[in-house]
Amino acid sequence: MLLGLFDSGIGGLTVVRELLKRHPRASFVYLGDTARAPYGNKTEETIRQYAIEDAAFLLGQGATHIAVACNTASAVALDALRQTFPRVTFLDVISPTVEAVQNKDKKIGVIGTRATIRSGTYEKELKEKLPDADIYSVACPLFVPIVEENWITQPETKKIVRRYLSPLKQQQIDALILGCTHYPLLQDVIRMSLQKRVRIIDSPSAMLDKIGREIPELITPSDEPRQDYFFTDLSLHTERIASRWLKRNIEGLLATLP
Amino acid sequence: MLLGLFDSGIGGLTVVRELLKRHPRASFVYLGDTARAPYGNKTEETIRQYAIEDAAFLLGQGATHIAVACNTASAVALDALRQTFPRVTFLDVISPTVEAVQNKDKKIGVIGTRATIRSGTYEKELKEKLPDADIYSVACPLFVPIVEENWITQPETKKIVRRYLSPLKQQQIDALILGCTHYPLLQDVIRMSLQKRVRIIDSPSAMLDKIGREIPELITPSDEPRQDYFFTDLSLHTERIASRWLKRNIEGLLATLP
Repeated sequence: MLLGLFDSGIGGLTVVRELLKRHPRASFVYLGDTARAPYGNKTEETIRQYAIEDAAFLLGQGATHIAVACNTASAVALDALRQTFPRVTFLDVISPTVEAVQNKDKKIGVIGTRATIRSGTYEKELKEKLPDADIYSVACPLFVPIVEENWITQPETKKIVRRYLSPLKQQQIDALILGCTHYPLLQDVIRMSLQKRVRIIDSPSAMLDKIGREIPELITPSDEPRQDYFFTDLSLHTERIASRWLKRNIEGLLATLP
Repeated sequence: MLLGLFDSGIGGLTVVRELLKRHPRASFVYLGDTARAPYGNKTEETIRQYAIEDAAFLLGQGATHIAVACNTASAVALDALRQTFPRVTFLDVISPTVEAVQNKDKKIGVIGTRATIRSGTYEKELKEKLPDADIYSVACPLFVPIVEENWITQPETKKIVRRYLSPLKQQQIDALILGCTHYPLLQDVIRMSLQKRVRIIDSPSAMLDKIGREIPELITPSDEPRQDYFFTDLSLHTERIASRWLKRNIEGLLATLP
C-alpha cells in the first residue's frame, strides 16, 4: 500500500503537513503540478485532463491509493478520475470536509477557487447532508497567489481577506469551510475577519481524519518511510516554501508527466 | 506577412490593444497560453519549453513574424526561440522598452514578474545603454493575479502597489519600466504611488513604436483583416476580460499546442 497525493502546486502540502503531524514516519509520494499551476481559474475540461495525468504519474510511482489534495480537482475531476482508473481508490478532499459540518450549523460559508465555487460541488453535497441549511459561497481567487507569495501576516492581506469575507460576516454564518488546501495558511487572518463564534473547517484535517478512520493501514509508520516530493516545475522558491511550511528540509524531485 | 503574438495568458492583449488603437484593421494571430498561465513564477527551463511550443503554434497558423508579447518569455526564452527557429523574425518586448529610456534618466526602476527580474535581462540591457545609470529592480508577483481578477481600482490594490513600489519611491527614481504586459492596466495606481515627475515607460507602446518604425508593412491595414484570438484554455472569464480590455466583443478559439 502506498499513498499518493497530488495538487496543482504546493497547496496540497498542507495535507502532507497534517499527515506528518500525526504520523511522522508514514510513507507517501507527493506530486505538485507547479508547471501548470494554478488550476483554480481554468476550465473543467483542462482541470480534468491535468488530474488524470497527475494520477497516472503517481500510479507509475507505485501509489495504490490517491488522495486528491486539491479542492479544485476534487470538485471537478473526481468522476473522470474514477472512470479512467476504475481499480484505484481515490480519496477526495470535499466529502470528508462536508462530513465535518455539524447538524447545528444552519448558515454555512464556503470559500474556494473560482472553479471550485463555480462547480457547485460543495453546495450540492452540503444540501444533501443538511437540506435546511443556508449555504453562502464566495470565490476568493487572490488567496492562492497571496499564500504562494508568503504574504501571510501582511496588513494588505488582512484587508484583502476582510473584503472577500465581508458578505459572509454580514450573513452571520455559523461555520466556514476552507474549500482550498492553500487556505489553512491564512486561517488566523480569516478568523479575525469573522465573528469569533464561527467554526472553521479545514479540509486537510478532515481528509486525514477520514483516512485514519477508514484506511488506517495506509498511513502506518515504517522504519524507513518513503517520502518523495515531486514537482513538474522545480524551483528554489518552491523548495524553500515547502521547507518552511513543513518545517523540515525538502529536496524536490523533477516529475515528467506521462 | 502575418504577425503572430503570444503571451502566457491575457496580459499580452495590452499589446493587441495598442496595435488596434493605432491600426484597427491590421491582421494578426494572438495566442494566450491560459492553460499553463502564469509563466512568471516558473523556472527558465519550463518557460523556454512553453515559449517554443507557443511559437510553433503561431507558425502553424501562418505567422511570419512573432512578437513575444510577454516580458517573462522575452527575458528568458528569446535566444532559445531564435536557435530553434532560425529563419523566423522574433520581436521581443524588452529591447524596444530599453530603447525608450532616455539618456537623462539616471535612476531607473524596473518592475516585473519574479522570473523577469531574476533573469537580470533588463538590468543587463540598461547597463549597456546607460553604463552610469542606477537600476533598481523589484519583482511584483501579485500584480498579475490582481489584474486577472480585474481589481484595477480597489483600495486594497492601491495598498499592495504602494507596498511593492515603496523602495523605488525612496530611491527617487527618474523613470519606471513596466516590465510586464499586464502592468499598463495598473498604470494609474502605479503613477499615484510614485513622485509625479517619474516617467513611466510601458512595453506595449515601445514594442509597437519599434514595429511601426522597422517593419511598418507588418501592421498595414487590409480590407478583411484576420484577427484571431487563440487560447489554450478557453473560459467565459477569459473572453469577458479580453472583451473588456479591448472594448470589443472577443470570441476566443481553442488552441491545441503542437
